[in-house]
Amino acid sequence: MFSAKPNDPIAALSALFARLPGIGERTAMRLAFSCLDKDPEYARALARSLQGLHEQVRRCRLCANYGSGDICAICADPTRQGSTLCIVSRVPDLLAIERSQSFRGRYHVLHGLLSPLDGMGPDDMSLEPLLARIRQEGINEVEVATPLTVSGEATALYLAELLRPLDVDVSRIASGMPHGGELEYTDQVTLGRAFEGRRAL
Amino acid sequence: MFSAKPNDPIAALSALFARLPGIGERTAMRLAFSCLDKDPEYARALARSLQGLHEQVRRCRLCANYGSGDICAICADPTRQGSTLCIVSRVPDLLAIERSQSFRGRYHVLHGLLSPLDGMGPDDMSLEPLLARIRQEGINEVEVATPLTVSGEATALYLAELLRPLDVDVSRIASGMPHGGELEYTDQVTLGRAFEGRRAL
Repeated sequence: MFSAKPNDPIAALSALFARLPGIGERTAMRLAFSCLDKDPEYARALARSLQGLHEQVRRCRLCANYGSGDICAICADPTRQGSTLCIVSRVPDLLAIERSQSFRGRYHVLHGLLSPLDGMGPDDMSLEPLLARIRQEGINEVEVATPLTVSGEATALYLAELLRPLDVDVSRIASGMPHGGELEYTDQVTLGRAFEGRRAL
Repeated sequence: MFSAKPNDPIAALSALFARLPGIGERTAMRLAFSCLDKDPEYARALARSLQGLHEQVRRCRLCANYGSGDICAICADPTRQGSTLCIVSRVPDLLAIERSQSFRGRYHVLHGLLSPLDGMGPDDMSLEPLLARIRQEGINEVEVATPLTVSGEATALYLAELLRPLDVDVSRIASGMPHGGELEYTDQVTLGRAFEGRRAL
């Protein structure tokens, strides 16, 4: 640290940067010095952007996607299929699906996954609005696009149970070989699933 | 982006993060989403820290090190050797030398290096206060601790020329094998310098 005082502003900024994902202590210090070395207007612009973030970005009342108003752009878009809903864990996952142009319905964002070890239970995910929406909007197909990780799979199973009493088809995105994948370098679980999920040619 | 609007606050924040060193576009987007997903107080604390940064951190009038007052803690410390000065490119380099406890004099921070391709000439470094200080404070030894890169070496040569008319010993930090280094994996230039700089046992 540049001084031993506890209120060292560089150390304070660095400690805040270090709370971001993938930013270790050394990187955080480098970022703090970079903010100092740049034109002061840069730090002020970043400050303004952060200050207003949570006022400007709101969660959609229907699907919990981020947007600027009460309802997000996707829920408000009348050209989206109203009968299918895709459940994702996080907004970046929704954006990835949108980039792939593989889904034309609407979404529901959980903002989390079941993870008892991290203290994440069903009550921490916005499931009530999901159930209400499925009942009210005549949705007949739900795609569960949580990640293929332990907590993503556990959440998918939980959702399948939860939605069973409703009159909807619930499906899970396929697990198998990634595009361009070489069999030699593919792990056993993935290969097993690729065989399990084989399709007639 | 989560919307096509040019004033998308997530895209704006992400673009600002992407201007920091080592932060690419995907990482910047991840950091922006992380700021959103965290408690809003986090983003506000980071904003406050950045907002006040350039007001709270000042460059020392004597050596250009960062500090909270007119003169930095090192220049103000009467126990430091007043007769030796160590020239560094950046404050993080000064901190690294302090951690190594290998120098007990005072510093001068250039806040840059000679780099004609990046438009950095001698006028962009604070050299006038350096010359004034050497003349006034009876400094008789200057260590040039700029990095061992092309621009660090060029700057060291430039400084040696600049300081030649003054009555001071100018030395350069040694170049050679790093601590724990294996000869087999050491590059040719470093090995060459290690032989060139050999010392009697």
